[in-house]
Amino acid sequence: MALVREPDVLEPELTSVLQGRWSPRAFDATHELDRRTLHLLLEAARWAPSAGNSQPWSFIVGLRGDATFDRFFEHLSRGNKSWAGNASALLVAVHQNASGPDHELPFDGYAAYDLGQAAAHLSVQAHAVGLHAHQFAGFDHEATQAEFSVPAHWTVKTGIAVGLLGDPALLDERTREKELRPRTRRAIGEFAFGGDWGEQPVELG
Amino acid sequence: MALVREPDVLEPELTSVLQGRWSPRAFDATHELDRRTLHLLLEAARWAPSAGNSQPWSFIVGLRGDATFDRFFEHLSRGNKSWAGNASALLVAVHQNASGPDHELPFDGYAAYDLGQAAAHLSVQAHAVGLHAHQFAGFDHEATQAEFSVPAHWTVKTGIAVGLLGDPALLDERTREKELRPRTRRAIGEFAFGGDWGEQPVELG
Repeated sequence: MALVREPDVLEPELTSVLQGRWSPRAFDATHELDRRTLHLLLEAARWAPSAGNSQPWSFIVGLRGDATFDRFFEHLSRGNKSWAGNASALLVAVHQNASGPDHELPFDGYAAYDLGQAAAHLSVQAHAVGLHAHQFAGFDHEATQAEFSVPAHWTVKTGIAVGLLGDPALLDERTREKELRPRTRRAIGEFAFGGDWGEQPVELG
Repeated sequence: MALVREPDVLEPELTSVLQGRWSPRAFDATHELDRRTLHLLLEAARWAPSAGNSQPWSFIVGLRGDATFDRFFEHLSRGNKSWAGNASALLVAVHQNASGPDHELPFDGYAAYDLGQAAAHLSVQAHAVGLHAHQFAGFDHEATQAEFSVPAHWTVKTGIAVGLLGDPALLDERTREKELRPRTRRAIGEFAFGGDWGEQPVELG
């Protein structure tokens, strides 16, 4: 019997790039990310919206086999090291936390939110071309900030692994168990209100 | 001569939901958001990724004509009041900042980022069904938090206007000027590095 994830039963009318999106651990170690596709991923992030068009995001990009990939990989948690090495690209996602000589930050308090949007756009573009993205927070942030000489007015936030879906049979047992677990989310009624907080779940059709 | 926005010259291979996405001010005051489409917008947000699947987001949803829409509208900045009243829906986007009786927050520091992702997913779904979304930060956050009795372990972050694109000729002059201005972004080489910060722009194809 083949070892496969059960397909998620999402709302079938959800647009296809969101319908098929999830964050796998099994990536194909033979897939290489070409520079044209990488360009499109960054272009997707580039056109994300942001507070007052502040664009408070940056990315450090490593492709499997290059020094940047290896330098970031060294700082990942043991759990993330168990799978992320097979991704075709590892990106460090960074947001601005104050103005600096390189770039103004006219709005306070929206940079992490806006980086999240840029990362989501990048992920949507990855899924649109048949790849998958897996964002993660488990790595040594301080060491990564120092490793790439990220200035103090920028904050290293997340990692993004991008690659082609691989065979979960090749994962270690603990990681494979996580990979095959059904995905879950809170019900809409728990987080969307039609009026006062918690009083009135929004009416849906 | 018709008053129209010049189409943006984006990377033509960008996937269509991102290609056509922008944040307009001109919304069609006759369009109504049906409950089925609203359901899909929230479903898109629901399936966004988050740190350890913490899902630290909530939304308060008003549809034009209902009390929730009007209650939020009252707290918008003068600039946003000039256009947001014609949107079909106004949502308050809220992220968790600590654990509470309603919901655990196992990871610190990713909730704003994750709310940004959920908002981006919601926007992508809006664009996929021919609508537009315009996120904004210009409103009285403290008054909005009190208005809807949002508890202290949740933070009111942004507003999201959703609707059908309208005629910019109906905007006031100052808002129309903003609406028709070409969209701009930093070049990829300014925010994506192939190694040490600022030293080596990432190589693109």
